[in-house]
Amino acid sequence: MSKLRATLTMSLDGYVAGPNQSLDYPLGIGGERLHEWMFPLKAFRESHGETGGEVNESTPVAERILGGTGATIMGRNMFGGGPGGWGDNAWNGWWGDNPPYHHPVFVLTRHAREPLELQGGTTFHFVTDGIESALERGRAAAGDEDVSLGGGASVVQQYLAAGLLDELTISVVPLLLGGGARLLENLGNPLPGLEQVEAIDAPGVTHIRYVASSRAT
Amino acid sequence: MSKLRATLTMSLDGYVAGPNQSLDYPLGIGGERLHEWMFPLKAFRESHGETGGEVNESTPVAERILGGTGATIMGRNMFGGGPGGWGDNAWNGWWGDNPPYHHPVFVLTRHAREPLELQGGTTFHFVTDGIESALERGRAAAGDEDVSLGGGASVVQQYLAAGLLDELTISVVPLLLGGGARLLENLGNPLPGLEQVEAIDAPGVTHIRYVASSRAT
Repeated sequence: MSKLRATLTMSLDGYVAGPNQSLDYPLGIGGERLHEWMFPLKAFRESHGETGGEVNESTPVAERILGGTGATIMGRNMFGGGPGGWGDNAWNGWWGDNPPYHHPVFVLTRHAREPLELQGGTTFHFVTDGIESALERGRAAAGDEDVSLGGGASVVQQYLAAGLLDELTISVVPLLLGGGARLLENLGNPLPGLEQVEAIDAPGVTHIRYVASSRAT
Repeated sequence: MSKLRATLTMSLDGYVAGPNQSLDYPLGIGGERLHEWMFPLKAFRESHGETGGEVNESTPVAERILGGTGATIMGRNMFGGGPGGWGDNAWNGWWGDNPPYHHPVFVLTRHAREPLELQGGTTFHFVTDGIESALERGRAAAGDEDVSLGGGASVVQQYLAAGLLDELTISVVPLLLGGGARLLENLGNPLPGLEQVEAIDAPGVTHIRYVASSRAT
């Protein structure tokens, strides 16, 4: 069965977004600096239609984030547009007409909505019946490929606490945000077990990959 | 001038000790598991008078923790014995008659006390006039060697917020504690800047070394 895996960038003090997230600051104040390790990479630039860029120790991690999965699951807050019903001029995501997913994306929400088909193979499906249903639909769409859990923090917490996340890669950046969306809290009781598989020393970031373990704390 | 450096083990969710610290559980519930990466090491076993053990990627980090500095600074909570005055049967630390420091140790406290000289070169000095005074005394005692900042969390926070910590190594273990003493909070405004120098992939732990940077968030 295909695996569910998440790859997130976290500040050293534990946040995946800074304080005061808003439409103007989707990653919160200072949060855009979390992803600076990725911007100079050739793999990142090419996925955004640009040329040039670096190849370094982060390249395999960026490639895993940018491709290699057959479906993505994300929370409503990551899809954006604020909380509540969708309204008439519904928000169509942060990513323009040709989002970088190029496969089905399942958005967890309490508010039903027809699928949103955009260019390049990305269709957003809005799932109102919970995380297990989204995973089942993601797996069916992904076929032999893995399913990517995009975020944000709350959705990762829910899958981790439910024992449904198979692999978690955390890219730890040397940044202190002092507040925002904390990744590793609300993880239930007993707490999930993790096993370290690999750590990569890259310019300005350390990527640590964990797999789910039966050992609980 | 000698540097002030701290080397701490942190759970993936940010704690250097688990919840409910007490005399029976000085590292809190589950907190002793933080240091499991160190126990099998030859360097650790020999420092505790035992033979045998492993040499692996963690060895240089353990050697830095166990030696190579000329003085140590720690907080009262790490020295132990509970809060408040010292009383008649004063607490003499967790480490028995021959503590593993073998150099002067400066304990930050509000309660004055005569120096406590134990075996093997360890003398505990009780400093009541603040973190800068302890650092000055630590540097004087260390001579050409660096000064080690032992912990706990609150003391590291104070030195980091004051811009007095030169180097911070965090050993990130694949453990979720769910509560306890959080290392990286209460860090002031503007927040301290850190630069990643090195990351080491070791069995069951990732050691990341940071130096202070002028770049504030």
